[in-house]
Amino acid sequence: MKILTQNEVKIVSVCGARDITSEIFERAEKLGNLLAKEGYVVACGGLSGTMEAVAKGALSAGGTTVGILPTYSKESANPYITIAIPTGLGESRNIILVSMADVVVSISGGAGTLSEIALAWKLGKPVVSLSTSGGWSAKLAGTRIDSTRAATIYSASTCEEVIDFVNSQLK
Amino acid sequence: MKILTQNEVKIVSVCGARDITSEIFERAEKLGNLLAKEGYVVACGGLSGTMEAVAKGALSAGGTTVGILPTYSKESANPYITIAIPTGLGESRNIILVSMADVVVSISGGAGTLSEIALAWKLGKPVVSLSTSGGWSAKLAGTRIDSTRAATIYSASTCEEVIDFVNSQLK
Amino acid sequence: MKILTQNEVKIVSVCGARDITSEIFERAEKLGNLLAKEGYVVACGGLSGTMEAVAKGALSAGGTTVGILPTYSKESANPYITIAIPTGLGESRNIILVSMADVVVSISGGAGTLSEIALAWKLGKPVVSLSTSGGWSAKLAGTRIDSTRAATIYSASTCEEVIDFVNSQLK
Amino acid sequence: MKILTQNEVKIVSVCGARDITSEIFERAEKLGNLLAKEGYVVACGGLSGTMEAVAKGALSAGGTTVGILPTYSKESANPYITIAIPTGLGESRNIILVSMADVVVSISGGAGTLSEIALAWKLGKPVVSLSTSGGWSAKLAGTRIDSTRAATIYSASTCEEVIDFVNSQLK
Repeated sequence: MKILTQNEVKIVSVCGARDITSEIFERAEKLGNLLAKEGYVVACGGLSGTMEAVAKGALSAGGTTVGILPTYSKESANPYITIAIPTGLGESRNIILVSMADVVVSISGGAGTLSEIALAWKLGKPVVSLSTSGGWSAKLAGTRIDSTRAATIYSASTCEEVIDFVNSQLK
Repeated sequence: MKILTQNEVKIVSVCGARDITSEIFERAEKLGNLLAKEGYVVACGGLSGTMEAVAKGALSAGGTTVGILPTYSKESANPYITIAIPTGLGESRNIILVSMADVVVSISGGAGTLSEIALAWKLGKPVVSLSTSGGWSAKLAGTRIDSTRAATIYSASTCEEVIDFVNSQLK
Repeated sequence: MKILTQNEVKIVSVCGARDITSEIFERAEKLGNLLAKEGYVVACGGLSGTMEAVAKGALSAGGTTVGILPTYSKESANPYITIAIPTGLGESRNIILVSMADVVVSISGGAGTLSEIALAWKLGKPVVSLSTSGGWSAKLAGTRIDSTRAATIYSASTCEEVIDFVNSQLK
Repeated sequence: MKILTQNEVKIVSVCGARDITSEIFERAEKLGNLLAKEGYVVACGGLSGTMEAVAKGALSAGGTTVGILPTYSKESANPYITIAIPTGLGESRNIILVSMADVVVSISGGAGTLSEIALAWKLGKPVVSLSTSGGWSAKLAGTRIDSTRAATIYSASTCEEVIDFVNSQLK
């Protein structure tokens, strides 16, 4: 019997804001779709906006989606989450979204996304930002958060470039 | 297109100790196997002992297993975890294991398992204990933790009775 | 200049339920008072019931009281908390109350208190229970939670005996 | 009897890196000193570098210092912490440092400090940065993290200006 191990399932966590434009929603949905087609489990914060878009895209490709929720309510998850994880941890749930990731992707985003990028950096995770999506993702794409790592936040201008980077890290 | 929602994926979290006898290991493995055959995602603490046994059993039935790990190290997961979630939260990760569950199952167990049963009770989760497995599961099976809930911790003497209870709650 | 270090400030965390009788309230208040007179910082969950009683008693003796709150709202603290620490961690805040303690004291209590006793045991903290206060404190006084520690949960029948035990550990 | 309430004790949390220059150490020490003289409880991450400097300064003014530690080890605190709170939460302890604050002050700093500034913003806390200290504090001073708040991160060029801002918020 072949044993499937955790090394074979790779998790890509996608960070982004709740309040987004329809254009960002479409791009996040496409990103989720492409990630799932590559066989990645797609994790997000489980709520609306970017989180819903990326889960929707992943689910439509037959993927598995994990939602790390801030409350104890499984019902707060968007309808595209297959594994809802209510944590009751409030904003601290952001760290779990990052710590569970093999690669972190950021799209647009405000303070919450910024905290996730910073924490991903601190935990040594590869981070890629959609440089054309505005917000903190655009500001930080191609930069280094501090001098503790030699890498930069990888700057991807398209969803396809995000996928290329993720594959370069995980395949 | 049919939308799979989180309401269709049910999570059963299994609590139990790291140091266990080979008999308890076998029973936990059987339990994991039966839970996966019923289609449940099986969650555990991700490490050795009961956690490894239940994941091993679930995986051999083709199930999905989630390991909520105390450290930031994905590598600390046992080899039967398909989705490893390193939290870095130490003992606080116990609460997530419980809060993500639709039903909590306890097998034998010491202080860690006791804290999980108590927290599951506090969060209003259905709890079933394998009454014939010793430890806190045996002590608490059939009892009420406090007067805030009318239910008792369901007492199951066999793995099959555990499954019957879980199905009664979730199907 | 003399340097005050953390080794000189000892923290005693008191666990107990929200819904308590007036008799338990009075005893918890007395306990907080005696602990503060001995110079201990008194920590609790910061809300009502046992938490309020023990803080009230400590404050009336000029003590410092710390409330580890489950929400982000400092305003949710009872009026006797001098240092309110809103955590937003929900039930996970119980672990901090325990992990910050030099000694853990339990009074009466339901599922929440039980989880705190279990976690204190797991973290290797000295635990003393007021054996005459009912609830889980009475049930567990004088017992061992599991075989990982040689100690028992110290059984104290009066507040004075609690103080004697705390002093034996910390002075 | 006058009742001291939590409303009378104000907490100022200071964020900054572990690896700092001696010049930043001196300024952080001065800042801690001034904050304590104003009567604020000074909270920090409890370890070395900025955390040690600010605690040292506060303690020398007779202040109370709280260290929110990432591990379960009280011994990991620097020698100027009066109330050491070991959390075992790893990087998640950053959020508690921020959520417990009435005002957040940032000095220089890398990814950890950036995550704290971002989380402070998200939790609606007043934030002031020492604009002349380099790092993320310099980059973000005077800016808005996102459009959800009308305020900016207050830019202070001296420790005295930090104090003026804190007093304007809390006195």
